[in-house]
Amino acid sequence: MRPRILTGDRPTGKLHLGHYVGSLQNRVALQNRYDQYIMIADVQALTDHFNAPQQIKKHILEVAKDYLSVGIDPHKTTLLIQSHIPEIAELTIYYLNLVTIGRLGRNPTVKSEIQQKGFKDEIPAGFFCYPVNQAADITIFQAEWIPVGADQLPMIEQTNEIVRRFNRIYQVDFLKECQAILSATPRLVGIDGKSKATKTLGNAIYLSDSPETIKQKVFQMYTDPNHLKVSDPGSIEGNVVFTYLDAFHTDKEAVASLKKDYQRGGLGDVTIKNILNDTLQHWLAPMRAQRETLQEKMVWEILHEGTQSARKLAQKTMQHVREVVGV
Amino acid sequence: MRPRILTGDRPTGKLHLGHYVGSLQNRVALQNRYDQYIMIADVQALTDHFNAPQQIKKHILEVAKDYLSVGIDPHKTTLLIQSHIPEIAELTIYYLNLVTIGRLGRNPTVKSEIQQKGFKDEIPAGFFCYPVNQAADITIFQAEWIPVGADQLPMIEQTNEIVRRFNRIYQVDFLKECQAILSATPRLVGIDGKSKATKTLGNAIYLSDSPETIKQKVFQMYTDPNHLKVSDPGSIEGNVVFTYLDAFHTDKEAVASLKKDYQRGGLGDVTIKNILNDTLQHWLAPMRAQRETLQEKMVWEILHEGTQSARKLAQKTMQHVREVVGV
Repeated sequence: MRPRILTGDRPTGKLHLGHYVGSLQNRVALQNRYDQYIMIADVQALTDHFNAPQQIKKHILEVAKDYLSVGIDPHKTTLLIQSHIPEIAELTIYYLNLVTIGRLGRNPTVKSEIQQKGFKDEIPAGFFCYPVNQAADITIFQAEWIPVGADQLPMIEQTNEIVRRFNRIYQVDFLKECQAILSATPRLVGIDGKSKATKTLGNAIYLSDSPETIKQKVFQMYTDPNHLKVSDPGSIEGNVVFTYLDAFHTDKEAVASLKKDYQRGGLGDVTIKNILNDTLQHWLAPMRAQRETLQEKMVWEILHEGTQSARKLAQKTMQHVREVVGV
Repeated sequence: MRPRILTGDRPTGKLHLGHYVGSLQNRVALQNRYDQYIMIADVQALTDHFNAPQQIKKHILEVAKDYLSVGIDPHKTTLLIQSHIPEIAELTIYYLNLVTIGRLGRNPTVKSEIQQKGFKDEIPAGFFCYPVNQAADITIFQAEWIPVGADQLPMIEQTNEIVRRFNRIYQVDFLKECQAILSATPRLVGIDGKSKATKTLGNAIYLSDSPETIKQKVFQMYTDPNHLKVSDPGSIEGNVVFTYLDAFHTDKEAVASLKKDYQRGGLGDVTIKNILNDTLQHWLAPMRAQRETLQEKMVWEILHEGTQSARKLAQKTMQHVREVVGV
């Protein structure tokens, strides 16, 4: 049997090129070597979007379409919706007994997210406890490999702490520790060049953007503000167009030569933006074509089937857990 | 339809006379006027007994037998096991988003329990969050009346805060606030006279104690350490035998007269202990007789049926909740 991998996204918006380079293209490759589960984490999305549930519901379908359009194959990958597997909530409740409030408060990922989101003293308990929810996600499907960025490593650590504590207290060994598959890909910067591309900042190129929108966003990209005339030497550093060319242009030599010309002077922003636009259009066109074949009903069916099959596995794990915690 | 009431116990030990005067006799009366749900809160018991699950499993049956032996009537009262209604865990996860960590930390009941249990910095997250779990218990069964002691009022307040927040955020009104039925009965002191009778301190007379054990415990009771000779005047204050006579002897005048004699001098501890023993034996004998008619299989069936019927109600509420939180 292929080793099982769990990954996923919070359905808080459509997926964009940052997701593509950061995780999606990796998943398309991983599904051939792993028994891949991709979870649409709507319950987790509610922990900081609890007052915008309609937003989340809407994006479940969009995210699923994004997956299928980039080449996630439902015959190789199990797609599932978190909220439809209530056993995860049940397991979370039992795991909450095995983690202290102090330990949760020291989680570096949660700490930095609390700061980012500006919760201050108003930290929702659900958000604070979400690493425990993640431990339930991972272990209920007996996933042993988790693709993560370095900033998510504390989550793996927390999960394994819970696993060890559970196995020790209840003297069992059926919960398995998991390991990170560290993603080396740096996060893609947003078109404004200021921060990473995110769903919330509106500075991303979505996989589902139309050709016109893509072109428009490319031409809005931050380049070198001192590069006023075509003949001026331009800077590559922090120039978003070159960042994206590095990420998406397949001919690395051509990109290197463009960089030299730009730094020397004589290569205009319009020219490099046109080249990037062609590159991205070429990249995204087949995804768009694939997306157009996706009927809503079919996508829901894929989600339904994946969720049903994942739930069977979750029920099996929960049955074991209930037996050992004695209820 | 009779208004619904929810009450219950953590199955961490057999029930004792303190439970009888504190809640059980009240429940026997309430079941005639209310649609009474009594929950055996095994999931909640795990929040501070997570490393002793077998203890809890064992006591589910004992507690149910205690209920039935004192006159809880399964035709009038729904008996249910919390862990068999996983929808409560699911609802708890959604409610956790509506409460802040700061608010939970200020809960006076939890604060004093944390101190009592000596958790210090090692507070299990499940224990810290248990008021949210209680809010889920209460609202999932749409219970509007909750019999509590004054020390539990913060729990009612927390529940109603969650109800109001949920209804406001999701613009619905199907979650109802609940009201306390305040129990005026003071907690029964333990036979050692030092603290309240508790399952854990072993200073309680259990409803299931044998006649011999009852007598033995009565004769161990703390009286007046300065009352050395029968002829000496004795003190009533803090004298456990008189506390129990006050609680269980039906002839209040006779008790008043005994107190006078004791204070004057000439009434010995053996005499009053014999009177109390007779009183308690008389009180507990019919419960013991009732208990002897209870077959284990029958008790499990009652629990199963009650839980099934309660689960239907919980599923209905959860269906509503899932619709409004959008999943």
